[in-house]
Amino acid sequence: MKIVPGTASQALGARIAAELSCELVACEFKRFPDGELYTRITGDVEGEHAVIVQSIRSDSDLVALLQLLDAAEDASKITAVIPYLGYARQDKRFKPGEAVSIRAIARSISYGAPALDTVYVVNVHDHAELRYFQVAVHELDASPLIGNYIMNMGIEPASVVVIAPDEGAAELARAVAAPYGLDYEVMEKKRLTGEEVEIKPKELSIDGKNIVIVDDIISTGGTIAEATKRMRERNAGDIYVACVHGLFVQNAILRMLHAGVKEIISTDTVESVFSRVSIAELVAKELERGVEVQ
Amino acid sequence: MKIVPGTASQALGARIAAELSCELVACEFKRFPDGELYTRITGDVEGEHAVIVQSIRSDSDLVALLQLLDAAEDASKITAVIPYLGYARQDKRFKPGEAVSIRAIARSISYGAPALDTVYVVNVHDHAELRYFQVAVHELDASPLIGNYIMNMGIEPASVVVIAPDEGAAELARAVAAPYGLDYEVMEKKRLTGEEVEIKPKELSIDGKNIVIVDDIISTGGTIAEATKRMRERNAGDIYVACVHGLFVQNAILRMLHAGVKEIISTDTVESVFSRVSIAELVAKELERGVEVQ
Repeated sequence: MKIVPGTASQALGARIAAELSCELVACEFKRFPDGELYTRITGDVEGEHAVIVQSIRSDSDLVALLQLLDAAEDASKITAVIPYLGYARQDKRFKPGEAVSIRAIARSISYGAPALDTVYVVNVHDHAELRYFQVAVHELDASPLIGNYIMNMGIEPASVVVIAPDEGAAELARAVAAPYGLDYEVMEKKRLTGEEVEIKPKELSIDGKNIVIVDDIISTGGTIAEATKRMRERNAGDIYVACVHGLFVQNAILRMLHAGVKEIISTDTVESVFSRVSIAELVAKELERGVEVQ
Repeated sequence: MKIVPGTASQALGARIAAELSCELVACEFKRFPDGELYTRITGDVEGEHAVIVQSIRSDSDLVALLQLLDAAEDASKITAVIPYLGYARQDKRFKPGEAVSIRAIARSISYGAPALDTVYVVNVHDHAELRYFQVAVHELDASPLIGNYIMNMGIEPASVVVIAPDEGAAELARAVAAPYGLDYEVMEKKRLTGEEVEIKPKELSIDGKNIVIVDDIISTGGTIAEATKRMRERNAGDIYVACVHGLFVQNAILRMLHAGVKEIISTDTVESVFSRVSIAELVAKELERGVEVQ
């Protein structure tokens, strides 16, 4: 097995290779003056099981993934680890004529290389959307890693309340909290216009409690900032934010900090300065299991 | 037949619809805060022959095309007109491990929609690369349009010499010049390092002649600027530049103008202020022929 990290998952790829004690294959990435990407796998993957690790955070990340799949054509088998699968939120037609973007993306990846065998993704928006892939696809769950991180922050577990800022994050909150017997609560969110949201908390005493607001994806941080304000109104203690995929676009970080967030925690599915939790071991174990099964 | 113009081919799409007197279907394109594209065909294409017109000038143009193919799922038949097919220059492995980018792009488009029937492209880098498409694909030739434009610029045809700045443009120069009996010459280009090029002109009297330098693609304008200088050293008259695909990246325009170019002419495969020649009629005729054949 050889690990081939793409443009968006350089650190994670290196960590996965270290976990598995297997070769990390470097690639050459550059842009031509006209903006086109150039991708070359500089190591030899001929006859090997090549594991491409590449999150899709942008349109160019997708193109780089398609190029990597093509460049690995001499591999006997290709596994694609896509820690953050972008375009996953447009998973159905909400209005007539809309593109189901995740279907378009999943198709392009599925046919990206004849040797592509399996795709791994991490905490997608809705598991059902994975049916759009035309190859075997497995979803990994990073919630135990977040739960474990919370338990090791040095806070008294009895003082912790895990908060889902909306129904979409309810399952994640339960998955983070339940194994450790932590309290959790789901807030009601009503989307008003565009970015505006109104959040109505259910009644539950969180006076003086330490709050961990969890969400699958943090984008502009608007939902989190709003939830944080509501928690402060209810006299919460320290407020932490933890997510699987930390996109942190625009002024997300300051927006959350200004609202009163003490600490921001993300995994390395999207690599940033807040990637305190690595999914490398989780991915490594799955890759080992995948090989054993065959 | 309904014409669906993508983000990169709005003007051309409208012109094609006008040529065919058929419906122009508007789309909604926007970006979410995290950078993801949203694409929706706002008109009804159910049971129709949808013609998607979208050049691939950037990675996002490709994603928009994949979304349009997906969004047209209710059409009975889809034709994709890709006037400028980006990534076409990486059409083979020059070094081990390189991605054959055009193969990756062609695959993703081919499987973009079950109803995709035919792809049209215009003057690609090398016709052989079209074999990477998994659907019927036809290459249209814009050189007669360029030849026609030159003949209508008000210059005496006997005073014109068409110049190919390198071997890659030789076929285009011949195709532009031959139908009108214009003189043409192919320059020898030797690529030194990166962007640097040395151009050795063959000996042919161009003293006082009006020069039209032609090329398939103009990117940074470096090759054209160098060819222009060589032509001026040989006492050329006015120097014009004509291309099919005018990318004009970085300071391409000023580079060419400073070198002594009088006028820059491009088609609308890539839409810009220099798109003096439209391929709309050429595309419209092919679409009509395609329908008649069936």
